[in-house]
Amino acid sequence: MKHLKLENGTSYDGSQIQPMWAFKQFGIKDSSIVSWIGPMEIRSDELIDYEDVGIEIKGGEMINFIIEHFDVQPADMRLCYHRQRLFVTIVKDILDNHGIKTRRDGDDLYVEKGDKDGKLSVSIATCSVSSMKIHFALNLTERGTPDDVETAGLLECGSVLKRENIPDVADEVCSNYIKEISSIESDITKTRVF
Amino acid sequence: MKHLKLENGTSYDGSQIQPMWAFKQFGIKDSSIVSWIGPMEIRSDELIDYEDVGIEIKGGEMINFIIEHFDVQPADMRLCYHRQRLFVTIVKDILDNHGIKTRRDGDDLYVEKGDKDGKLSVSIATCSVSSMKIHFALNLTERGTPDDVETAGLLECGSVLKRENIPDVADEVCSNYIKEISSIESDITKTRVF
Amino acid sequence: MKHLKLENGTSYDGSQIQPMWAFKQFGIKDSSIVSWIGPMEIRSDELIDYEDVGIEIKGGEMINFIIEHFDVQPADMRLCYHRQRLFVTIVKDILDNHGIKTRRDGDDLYVEKGDKDGKLSVSIATCSVSSMKIHFALNLTERGTPDDVETAGLLECGSVLKRENIPDVADEVCSNYIKEISSIESDITKTRVF
Amino acid sequence: MKHLKLENGTSYDGSQIQPMWAFKQFGIKDSSIVSWIGPMEIRSDELIDYEDVGIEIKGGEMINFIIEHFDVQPADMRLCYHRQRLFVTIVKDILDNHGIKTRRDGDDLYVEKGDKDGKLSVSIATCSVSSMKIHFALNLTERGTPDDVETAGLLECGSVLKRENIPDVADEVCSNYIKEISSIESDITKTRVF
Amino acid sequence: MKHLKLENGTSYDGSQIQPMWAFKQFGIKDSSIVSWIGPMEIRSDELIDYEDVGIEIKGGEMINFIIEHFDVQPADMRLCYHRQRLFVTIVKDILDNHGIKTRRDGDDLYVEKGDKDGKLSVSIATCSVSSMKIHFALNLTERGTPDDVETAGLLECGSVLKRENIPDVADEVCSNYIKEISSIESDITKTRVF
Amino acid sequence: MKHLKLENGTSYDGSQIQPMWAFKQFGIKDSSIVSWIGPMEIRSDELIDYEDVGIEIKGGEMINFIIEHFDVQPADMRLCYHRQRLFVTIVKDILDNHGIKTRRDGDDLYVEKGDKDGKLSVSIATCSVSSMKIHFALNLTERGTPDDVETAGLLECGSVLKRENIPDVADEVCSNYIKEISSIESDITKTRVF
Repeated sequence: MKHLKLENGTSYDGSQIQPMWAFKQFGIKDSSIVSWIGPMEIRSDELIDYEDVGIEIKGGEMINFIIEHFDVQPADMRLCYHRQRLFVTIVKDILDNHGIKTRRDGDDLYVEKGDKDGKLSVSIATCSVSSMKIHFALNLTERGTPDDVETAGLLECGSVLKRENIPDVADEVCSNYIKEISSIESDITKTRVF
Repeated sequence: MKHLKLENGTSYDGSQIQPMWAFKQFGIKDSSIVSWIGPMEIRSDELIDYEDVGIEIKGGEMINFIIEHFDVQPADMRLCYHRQRLFVTIVKDILDNHGIKTRRDGDDLYVEKGDKDGKLSVSIATCSVSSMKIHFALNLTERGTPDDVETAGLLECGSVLKRENIPDVADEVCSNYIKEISSIESDITKTRVF
Repeated sequence: MKHLKLENGTSYDGSQIQPMWAFKQFGIKDSSIVSWIGPMEIRSDELIDYEDVGIEIKGGEMINFIIEHFDVQPADMRLCYHRQRLFVTIVKDILDNHGIKTRRDGDDLYVEKGDKDGKLSVSIATCSVSSMKIHFALNLTERGTPDDVETAGLLECGSVLKRENIPDVADEVCSNYIKEISSIESDITKTRVF
Repeated sequence: MKHLKLENGTSYDGSQIQPMWAFKQFGIKDSSIVSWIGPMEIRSDELIDYEDVGIEIKGGEMINFIIEHFDVQPADMRLCYHRQRLFVTIVKDILDNHGIKTRRDGDDLYVEKGDKDGKLSVSIATCSVSSMKIHFALNLTERGTPDDVETAGLLECGSVLKRENIPDVADEVCSNYIKEISSIESDITKTRVF
Repeated sequence: MKHLKLENGTSYDGSQIQPMWAFKQFGIKDSSIVSWIGPMEIRSDELIDYEDVGIEIKGGEMINFIIEHFDVQPADMRLCYHRQRLFVTIVKDILDNHGIKTRRDGDDLYVEKGDKDGKLSVSIATCSVSSMKIHFALNLTERGTPDDVETAGLLECGSVLKRENIPDVADEVCSNYIKEISSIESDITKTRVF
Repeated sequence: MKHLKLENGTSYDGSQIQPMWAFKQFGIKDSSIVSWIGPMEIRSDELIDYEDVGIEIKGGEMINFIIEHFDVQPADMRLCYHRQRLFVTIVKDILDNHGIKTRRDGDDLYVEKGDKDGKLSVSIATCSVSSMKIHFALNLTERGTPDDVETAGLLECGSVLKRENIPDVADEVCSNYIKEISSIESDITKTRVF
């Protein structure tokens, strides 16, 4: 599984959730996690979550992660959502280590904002017959996020995290996720079954 | 998925990891999570982790969780280990909410003990053709744990957690795990696929 | 698994066989069976059975059932067709209990009409990566059915079934199907495997 | 899929439910259904249904069917139980055509006996990693059946079925089951998927 | 699994790789291998291999094979590529028996052409949810092959194979492939598993 | 996937076909291929092929290969036998490159011996719920092979292969097999699916 970092400023428009995007754009012939910082504005025909139909999904500046797994054939939405959840817990732990306490609800992370919870993230998972895809993104700022949702930004809310640390946080997330998947594969090889 | 609480004092000897244990012992005809407080001493013929051969796996007083899933047929070790990891992150978050900061490494939780990390938990996953099983247990005390491992106990190490809260912590873990699995199933039903 | 009854008069045009229809139309976040009485006229671009290309598939008034299963990931056409067959046998048994003797051939039910067999039903199954869908419909009347097929209607052919009983028959079918799938899940949990 | 008829009198002792029995005994290198008439007395170590532990499962003279499927790899208990149910509905229909009205409850067939229901059948399904097995048997007589269960026999209860017709009934069951499975495979090849 | 031979001259334009092509064109309700001799010119919207985007894939006269498997549900790209590789090794062995020594690299066959290797074949595999498809084609001649690839033709390069033997070679390939898949199925039925 | 070479002289007694052997013996936490030269004498309780019951399976000196795959969960006998066949074709090609022409029949290799074919190899595949295993072995000599089978040895029959080249041949086989599996995984990542 490979990690690719894109130039900052790339916009997430939803096309990146399509299967084989990493191969078609960057020639990656492997499972992959691609990360970058940039805005998000999803074209309505690229919506994956049918609950999001008619809703604005956007952000002015976010850390984006696109994961694609080819290891399980045929692709399995159930496993894909388990991996999405694991990914979110890995993000949560790393933010915690950087002094940002969040609450996880399914695939969403929230941070306390006065007496309310600000939504810090968006995420979706999907698959084709041959690959499992996950998108996860964290707001760096509330700027550009939907008006009708209470959101929060990693660099706001009195956070101790600084802009210059964001790339390292993103790398740490990718590295830990790759290690987690790898440790699961490793555990299988030492387990007695019935 | 059902949650069953056993009387305290039941000993975990490894037989509980066998497929269908919850049905054979308690008549549960469903996926289930069974929890109880008691000692652990695994009979060598019940070892699941081949890395544990020749090693003492024991504890004087632990919160034990035994999970069995029948929803995926045939059972899948890969999914089973993903669920185990998710379970451990759920435990970690609940302990955190109770003021106990832990570090997760794969399926193990550690807590700081002076300048060392004390191992707080043991866990294994396995499966037969038709079910996936997970065992996870947290030390309440270092008493009875192996001499050659640096362990820690939930009720020791300056913990704010009190013995009378332990049953609630166990219930919260079970409840959150059941909700997590259920939320994943729910998310599948609203997701566009390619 | 949920059962939803629609208002009578809804027309089956083939769009209902599409994955996630029950979620997109009614917000059902679960496996489901939706039933209603209404006409059927399938738009040619909604045809699922390639054998039906160029054939009229229609009926003036039918009991329609649309089933969607999310329990098996990835979705499996083989299991889906097994469930379709089981569904048809459940319909057959309930009709038999109501005094209507039918003959089953694969996924079709026939009723004796003089010296011929009248086709009483239409059915198809299909799937996407994440869900399995079944459509089954019974003619209440021969009116509006294709001219080139010998059809029969539940309320005709000297049937003892009355129009006012049809909703109960539909409910019984749905209820028994849900029970059947549930009993299978239950049986798995008590079965020794090798 | 092959059909093999054994000599009458073979006793079902539970060993026949083991994977590869048809190959080891008769050299059948295919999915198969084996049928014969004989008594049943299951050795307790051959029990598959954990609900049957401590219960007598026996009959003086039964039509026995043993099915083994290798087409699905790895074997799948869920599909196996769907096939078992389909098999029972096929038996039910054929008995009905021979004038014996039965009631199906899961994998059991019952026949009216005065004001009670007499249990006409026993059945179980199981699997190994590579094959799915089903046993189904119909009492020809109540003789030799357990004392504590209300049973019925095909040749008793005022049945119109005669002993000399039993082999034909068994053959018809096997033939129709093989046709059913084959028709499902055939339907897959003509179905548009999403 | 059925073998169908088409009239020579049929052009491979990429549409034949679509699922259900054999059923829609020829009514084959089974897994199948279809073979014919004809030119190849793939329409760009029918490209399956994303590496081929922007590349000419064509040949003036080729032996074409289109395979579709429905036996595994849901379809599995990994198994499909294993079958493709097996198919290529079968072609390689038959060519070898006819005096044409080739080198296999993945799914490509090469033949020595002076001091270079000439590419003799093209191949791709793909799947939908319900079927696995393989296309493989051998150049009979270099005529009409892309200018920017060093290709070779079966009837050129000093080959001992004659045009009149080509149909027999194609039949032999199909027959051996069908036997191979069948022998694998057969081996499963005699194998002890753990 | 790892390749491990054992000291020559290790005897294959059938225990090596058991799941997790490479982990339990050598601590390999990965899919693996283990190769060595040594005699073979299979203990009857280690027989995997039920056709071999009562038959001597032995050889005085053989190149042994034991493969274990954990990549596919749950393990799949069908894929396992496809990999076995691919493995045998890889051996066949390498022997051919070393001047030894063989004929493959399923998982067996034969070499011409006067007017007869001498069996050069033995092979079996099997699996547990979590791993797929393959054993393949080539006779270096006819010495020690069963009396009732016409066998052949790689270093006999006028072979150009010398004893000192055998380790390189074994390495080449392992290396090419690992590459083949890897190239299949790679091909999946560039393939458009329907």
